[in-house]
Amino acid sequence: MVKAVLSAVLVLAIISSTIAKYIPKTGKRIPQTLSRGWGDQLIWAQTYEEALYWSRSRNKPLMVIFHLEDCPHSQALKKVFSENNEIQKTLDEDFIVLNLMYETTDKHLSPDGQYVPRILFVDPSMTVRADINGRYSNRMYAYETGDISLLISNMQTAKKLLKAEL
Amino acid sequence: MVKAVLSAVLVLAIISSTIAKYIPKTGKRIPQTLSRGWGDQLIWAQTYEEALYWSRSRNKPLMVIFHLEDCPHSQALKKVFSENNEIQKTLDEDFIVLNLMYETTDKHLSPDGQYVPRILFVDPSMTVRADINGRYSNRMYAYETGDISLLISNMQTAKKLLKAEL
Repeated sequence: MVKAVLSAVLVLAIISSTIAKYIPKTGKRIPQTLSRGWGDQLIWAQTYEEALYWSRSRNKPLMVIFHLEDCPHSQALKKVFSENNEIQKTLDEDFIVLNLMYETTDKHLSPDGQYVPRILFVDPSMTVRADINGRYSNRMYAYETGDISLLISNMQTAKKLLKAEL
Repeated sequence: MVKAVLSAVLVLAIISSTIAKYIPKTGKRIPQTLSRGWGDQLIWAQTYEEALYWSRSRNKPLMVIFHLEDCPHSQALKKVFSENNEIQKTLDEDFIVLNLMYETTDKHLSPDGQYVPRILFVDPSMTVRADINGRYSNRMYAYETGDISLLISNMQTAKKLLKAEL
Protein backbone atom coordinates (compact mmCIF):
# COMPACT_ATOMS: atom_id res chain seq x y z
CA MET A 1 0.00 0.00 0.00
CA VAL A 2 2.78 2.42 0.99
CA LYS A 3 4.67 1.42 -2.16
CA ALA A 4 1.62 2.07 -4.35
CA VAL A 5 1.16 5.52 -2.83
CA LEU A 6 4.85 6.33 -3.26
CA SER A 7 4.72 5.24 -6.92
CA ALA A 8 1.66 7.37 -7.49
CA VAL A 9 3.39 10.38 -5.90
CA LEU A 10 6.48 9.78 -8.03
CA VAL A 11 4.45 9.52 -11.22
CA LEU A 12 2.58 12.71 -10.34
CA ALA A 13 5.85 14.50 -9.56
CA ILE A 14 7.31 13.46 -12.92
CA ILE A 15 4.17 14.50 -14.80
CA SER A 16 3.98 17.88 -13.07
CA SER A 17 7.67 18.63 -13.61
CA THR A 18 7.25 17.84 -17.32
CA ILE A 19 4.15 19.93 -17.87
CA ALA A 20 4.92 22.66 -15.31
CA LYS A 21 4.74 26.04 -17.00
CA TYR A 22 7.67 28.42 -17.00
CA ILE A 23 7.63 30.87 -14.11
CA PRO A 24 10.14 33.76 -14.04
CA LYS A 25 12.60 33.98 -11.14
CA THR A 26 10.97 37.24 -10.08
CA GLY A 27 7.63 35.45 -9.65
CA LYS A 28 4.52 34.80 -11.69
CA ARG A 29 3.34 37.71 -13.82
CA ILE A 30 -0.17 38.79 -14.75
CA PRO A 31 -0.42 38.50 -18.55
CA GLN A 32 -0.41 41.90 -20.27
CA THR A 33 -3.70 42.89 -21.89
CA LEU A 34 -4.11 44.78 -25.13
CA SER A 35 -6.61 47.12 -23.44
CA ARG A 36 -4.05 48.24 -20.82
CA GLY A 37 -7.01 49.40 -18.72
CA TRP A 38 -8.67 51.60 -21.38
CA GLY A 39 -11.64 49.20 -21.66
CA ASP A 40 -11.28 45.50 -21.01
CA GLN A 41 -14.48 44.69 -22.91
CA LEU A 42 -13.39 46.38 -26.14
CA ILE A 43 -11.69 44.52 -28.97
CA TRP A 44 -8.38 46.34 -29.41
CA ALA A 45 -6.25 46.32 -32.54
CA GLN A 46 -2.61 45.51 -31.81
CA THR A 47 -0.92 47.71 -34.40
CA TYR A 48 -1.75 50.72 -36.57
CA GLU A 49 -1.60 48.56 -39.71
CA GLU A 50 -4.12 46.15 -38.21
CA ALA A 51 -6.35 49.02 -37.05
CA LEU A 52 -6.34 50.64 -40.51
CA TYR A 53 -7.22 47.30 -42.09
CA TRP A 54 -10.19 46.81 -39.74
CA SER A 55 -11.31 50.41 -40.17
CA ARG A 56 -11.36 50.13 -43.96
CA SER A 57 -12.91 46.67 -44.15
CA ARG A 58 -15.64 47.38 -41.56
CA ASN A 59 -16.16 51.01 -42.61
CA LYS A 60 -15.80 52.25 -39.03
CA PRO A 61 -13.77 55.23 -37.82
CA LEU A 62 -10.62 54.49 -35.80
CA MET A 63 -9.70 56.04 -32.47
CA VAL A 64 -5.98 56.03 -31.64
CA ILE A 65 -4.97 56.77 -28.04
CA PHE A 66 -1.34 57.60 -27.24
CA HIS A 67 -0.53 57.22 -23.55
CA LEU A 68 2.16 56.23 -21.05
CA GLU A 69 1.97 54.12 -17.92
CA ASP A 70 4.03 56.61 -15.89
CA CYS A 71 2.14 59.72 -17.02
CA PRO A 72 -0.37 60.89 -14.36
CA HIS A 73 -2.47 62.75 -16.99
CA SER A 74 -2.76 59.54 -19.04
CA GLN A 75 -3.70 57.55 -15.96
CA ALA A 76 -6.35 60.06 -14.85
CA LEU A 77 -7.91 60.20 -18.33
CA LYS A 78 -7.81 56.39 -18.57
CA LYS A 79 -9.80 56.08 -15.35
CA VAL A 80 -12.72 58.29 -16.44
CA PHE A 81 -12.53 56.94 -20.01
CA SER A 82 -12.75 53.28 -18.99
CA GLU A 83 -15.52 53.92 -16.47
CA ASN A 84 -17.69 55.94 -18.86
CA ASN A 85 -20.34 53.58 -20.25
CA GLU A 86 -21.36 55.90 -23.08
CA ILE A 87 -17.78 56.03 -24.38
CA GLN A 88 -17.25 52.31 -23.97
CA LYS A 89 -20.55 51.35 -25.65
CA THR A 90 -20.06 53.74 -28.57
CA LEU A 91 -16.50 52.58 -29.12
CA ASP A 92 -17.52 48.93 -28.98
CA GLU A 93 -20.35 49.33 -31.46
CA ASP A 94 -19.14 52.01 -33.85
CA PHE A 95 -15.35 52.31 -33.69
CA ILE A 96 -12.09 50.46 -34.20
CA VAL A 97 -9.83 51.14 -31.21
CA LEU A 98 -6.07 51.17 -30.74
CA ASN A 99 -3.99 52.31 -27.77
CA LEU A 100 -0.25 52.83 -28.16
CA MET A 101 2.61 53.60 -25.80
CA TYR A 102 5.14 54.00 -28.62
CA GLU A 103 4.88 56.35 -31.57
CA THR A 104 4.38 54.95 -35.06
CA THR A 105 6.46 55.99 -38.07
CA ASP A 106 3.41 57.74 -39.54
CA LYS A 107 3.79 61.48 -38.98
CA HIS A 108 0.11 62.12 -39.71
CA LEU A 109 -0.60 60.77 -36.23
CA SER A 110 1.37 63.61 -34.63
CA PRO A 111 0.08 66.76 -36.42
CA ASP A 112 1.34 69.05 -33.64
CA GLY A 113 3.95 66.89 -31.97
CA GLN A 114 4.29 63.76 -29.89
CA TYR A 115 2.80 64.06 -26.42
CA VAL A 116 0.51 62.03 -24.15
CA PRO A 117 -2.32 61.64 -23.61
CA ARG A 118 -3.32 62.33 -27.21
CA ILE A 119 -6.35 61.08 -29.13
CA LEU A 120 -6.57 61.05 -32.92
CA PHE A 121 -9.43 59.92 -35.13
CA VAL A 122 -8.89 58.28 -38.51
CA ASP A 123 -11.62 57.97 -41.16
CA PRO A 124 -12.13 54.60 -42.93
CA SER A 125 -10.82 56.41 -46.04
CA MET A 126 -7.49 56.37 -44.09
CA THR A 127 -7.57 60.13 -43.58
CA VAL A 128 -6.33 61.32 -40.18
CA ARG A 129 -9.03 63.70 -38.90
CA ALA A 130 -6.73 66.55 -37.84
CA ASP A 131 -9.89 68.71 -37.79
CA ILE A 132 -11.26 66.86 -34.74
CA ASN A 133 -9.45 68.26 -31.73
CA GLY A 134 -9.73 69.11 -28.04
CA ARG A 135 -9.67 72.49 -26.29
CA TYR A 136 -5.94 73.21 -25.88
CA SER A 137 -4.34 75.27 -28.63
CA ASN A 138 -0.80 74.18 -27.76
CA ARG A 139 -1.72 70.49 -27.62
CA MET A 140 -4.62 70.17 -30.03
CA TYR A 141 -5.29 66.45 -29.45
CA ALA A 142 -4.92 66.33 -25.66
CA TYR A 143 -7.91 65.68 -23.42
CA GLU A 144 -8.13 66.07 -19.67
CA THR A 145 -10.56 64.38 -17.30
CA GLY A 146 -12.93 67.37 -17.52
CA ASP A 147 -13.08 67.09 -21.33
CA ILE A 148 -15.06 63.85 -21.51
CA SER A 149 -18.19 65.47 -22.96
CA LEU A 150 -16.10 67.18 -25.65
CA LEU A 151 -14.51 63.81 -26.42
CA ILE A 152 -17.96 62.20 -26.75
CA SER A 153 -19.04 65.03 -29.04
CA ASN A 154 -15.87 64.53 -31.11
CA MET A 155 -16.65 60.82 -31.38
CA GLN A 156 -20.03 61.74 -32.86
CA THR A 157 -18.26 63.96 -35.41
CA ALA A 158 -15.86 61.13 -36.30
CA LYS A 159 -18.85 58.81 -36.89
CA LYS A 160 -20.02 61.11 -39.70
CA LEU A 161 -17.72 59.54 -42.27
CA LEU A 162 -15.97 61.60 -44.91
CA LYS A 163 -17.31 60.85 -48.35
CA ALA A 164 -14.80 59.33 -50.73
CA GLU A 165 -13.72 62.09 -53.09
CA LEU A 166 -13.80 61.03 -56.72
CA MET B 1 -36.27 49.61 10.11
CA VAL B 2 -37.91 48.57 6.82
CA LYS B 3 -37.44 52.12 5.54
CA ALA B 4 -33.78 52.10 6.48
CA VAL B 5 -33.23 48.80 4.64
CA LEU B 6 -35.09 50.07 1.58
CA SER B 7 -33.03 53.25 1.55
CA ALA B 8 -29.83 51.24 1.82
CA VAL B 9 -30.95 49.00 -1.07
CA LEU B 10 -31.82 52.06 -3.14
CA VAL B 11 -28.48 53.71 -2.46
CA LEU B 12 -26.65 50.49 -3.35
CA ALA B 13 -28.69 50.16 -6.56
CA ILE B 14 -27.83 53.73 -7.58
CA ILE B 15 -24.15 53.27 -6.77
CA SER B 16 -23.92 49.99 -8.68
CA SER B 17 -25.74 51.39 -11.73
CA THR B 18 -23.35 54.33 -11.76
CA ILE B 19 -20.14 52.35 -11.41
CA ALA B 20 -21.31 49.25 -13.33
CA LYS B 21 -18.80 48.51 -16.05
CA TYR B 22 -19.86 48.31 -19.67
CA ILE B 23 -20.76 44.79 -20.80
CA PRO B 24 -21.35 44.08 -24.51
CA LYS B 25 -24.76 42.78 -25.61
CA THR B 26 -23.12 39.53 -26.69
CA GLY B 27 -21.88 38.95 -23.13
CA LYS B 28 -18.77 39.60 -21.11
CA ARG B 29 -15.49 39.05 -22.95
CA ILE B 30 -12.17 37.78 -21.67
CA PRO B 31 -9.66 40.62 -22.15
CA GLN B 32 -7.24 39.95 -25.04
CA THR B 33 -3.66 39.32 -23.98
CA LEU B 34 -0.57 40.45 -25.83
CA SER B 35 0.90 36.93 -25.54
CA ARG B 36 -2.04 35.36 -27.42
CA GLY B 37 -1.02 32.04 -25.90
CA TRP B 38 2.66 32.11 -27.02
CA GLY B 39 3.87 32.52 -23.42
CA ASP B 40 1.78 34.28 -20.78
CA GLN B 41 4.82 34.88 -18.57
CA LEU B 42 6.85 36.71 -21.23
CA ILE B 43 6.83 40.49 -21.61
CA TRP B 44 5.63 41.06 -25.17
CA ALA B 45 6.25 44.17 -27.23
CA GLN B 46 3.06 45.50 -28.81
CA THR B 47 4.45 46.80 -32.09
CA TYR B 48 7.55 46.35 -34.25
CA GLU B 49 8.67 49.92 -33.49
CA GLU B 50 8.43 49.22 -29.75
CA ALA B 51 10.26 45.88 -30.13
CA LEU B 52 13.11 47.51 -32.10
CA TYR B 53 13.43 50.21 -29.44
CA TRP B 54 13.66 47.63 -26.64
CA SER B 55 16.09 45.48 -28.63
CA ARG B 56 18.45 48.39 -29.24
CA SER B 57 18.24 49.87 -25.77
CA ARG B 58 18.64 46.53 -23.94
CA ASN B 59 21.06 45.05 -26.48
CA LYS B 60 19.00 41.88 -26.83
CA PRO B 61 18.03 40.10 -30.04
CA LEU B 62 14.39 40.26 -31.09
CA MET B 63 12.21 37.30 -32.07
CA VAL B 64 9.22 38.13 -34.28
CA ILE B 65 6.51 35.48 -34.66
CA PHE B 66 3.91 35.84 -37.43
CA HIS B 67 0.87 33.66 -36.86
CA LEU B 68 -2.90 33.43 -37.33
CA GLU B 69 -5.62 32.25 -34.98
CA ASP B 70 -7.32 30.16 -37.66
CA CYS B 71 -4.14 28.49 -38.96
CA PRO B 72 -3.75 24.93 -37.59
CA HIS B 73 0.04 24.98 -38.17
CA SER B 74 0.32 28.19 -36.11
CA GLN B 75 -1.83 26.69 -33.35
CA ALA B 76 0.19 23.45 -33.22
CA LEU B 77 3.50 25.32 -33.09
CA LYS B 78 2.14 27.68 -30.42
CA LYS B 79 1.24 24.72 -28.19
CA VAL B 80 4.73 23.14 -28.18
CA PHE B 81 6.37 26.60 -28.11
CA SER B 82 4.44 27.83 -25.07
CA GLU B 83 4.89 24.54 -23.19
CA ASN B 84 8.65 24.35 -23.79
CA ASN B 85 10.38 25.66 -20.67
CA GLU B 86 13.77 26.04 -22.34
CA ILE B 87 12.31 28.28 -25.04
CA GLN B 88 10.26 30.29 -22.57
CA LYS B 89 13.15 30.78 -20.11
CA THR B 90 15.63 31.76 -22.83
CA LEU B 91 13.19 34.18 -24.41
CA ASP B 92 12.37 35.74 -21.05
CA GLU B 93 15.99 36.24 -20.06
CA ASP B 94 17.78 36.95 -23.33
CA PHE B 95 15.29 38.12 -25.97
CA ILE B 96 12.76 40.79 -26.84
CA VAL B 97 9.59 39.11 -28.12
CA LEU B 98 6.82 40.19 -30.48
CA ASN B 99 3.97 38.18 -31.99
CA LEU B 100 1.97 39.61 -34.87
CA MET B 101 -1.15 38.55 -36.76
CA TYR B 102 -0.84 41.37 -39.30
CA GLU B 103 2.14 42.10 -41.51
CA THR B 104 4.19 45.23 -40.95
CA THR B 105 5.16 47.63 -43.72
CA ASP B 106 8.81 46.54 -43.35
CA LYS B 107 9.64 44.17 -46.21
CA HIS B 108 12.79 42.93 -44.47
CA LEU B 109 10.49 40.87 -42.23
CA SER B 110 9.24 38.87 -45.23
CA PRO B 111 12.45 37.90 -47.10
CA ASP B 112 10.71 35.05 -48.97
CA GLY B 113 7.07 36.07 -48.69
CA GLN B 114 4.31 36.45 -46.16
CA TYR B 115 3.15 33.15 -44.63
CA VAL B 116 2.41 31.77 -41.18
CA PRO B 117 3.79 30.51 -38.92
CA ARG B 118 7.03 32.39 -39.60
CA ILE B 119 9.79 33.32 -37.16
CA LEU B 120 12.38 36.02 -37.83
CA PHE B 121 15.26 37.16 -35.66
CA VAL B 122 16.45 40.76 -35.57
CA ASP B 123 19.83 41.81 -34.17
CA PRO B 124 20.03 44.82 -31.79
CA SER B 125 21.87 46.56 -34.65
CA MET B 126 18.40 46.45 -36.33
CA THR B 127 19.57 43.92 -38.92
CA VAL B 128 17.01 41.24 -39.81
CA ARG B 129 18.90 37.92 -39.51
CA ALA B 130 17.78 36.43 -42.85
CA ASP B 131 20.65 33.95 -42.38
CA ILE B 132 18.88 32.25 -39.46
CA ASN B 133 16.28 29.95 -40.97
CA GLY B 134 14.42 26.67 -40.59
CA ARG B 135 14.55 23.50 -42.73
CA TYR B 136 12.11 24.26 -45.56
CA SER B 137 13.64 25.71 -48.72
CA ASN B 138 10.31 27.05 -50.01
CA ARG B 139 9.41 28.68 -46.68
CA MET B 140 12.74 29.49 -45.11
CA TYR B 141 11.37 30.93 -41.83
CA ALA B 142 8.63 28.36 -41.15
CA TYR B 143 8.89 25.94 -38.22
CA GLU B 144 6.79 22.88 -37.55
CA THR B 145 6.21 21.17 -34.20
CA GLY B 146 9.06 18.73 -34.91
CA ASP B 147 11.51 21.62 -35.45
CA ILE B 148 11.68 22.82 -31.85
CA SER B 149 15.32 21.75 -31.32
CA LEU B 150 16.33 23.56 -34.54
CA LEU B 151 14.48 26.63 -33.27
CA ILE B 152 16.34 26.45 -29.94
CA SER B 153 19.63 26.12 -31.82
CA ASN B 154 18.68 29.14 -33.97
CA MET B 155 17.93 31.11 -30.81
CA GLN B 156 21.48 30.38 -29.63
CA THR B 157 22.80 31.68 -32.98
CA ALA B 158 20.72 34.84 -32.64
CA LYS B 159 22.18 35.41 -29.16
CA LYS B 160 25.66 35.75 -30.70
CA LEU B 161 25.19 39.39 -31.62
CA LEU B 162 26.52 40.86 -34.83
CA LYS B 163 29.33 43.29 -34.14
CA ALA B 164 28.60 46.87 -35.08
CA GLU B 165 30.44 47.58 -38.33
CA LEU B 166 32.36 50.83 -38.22
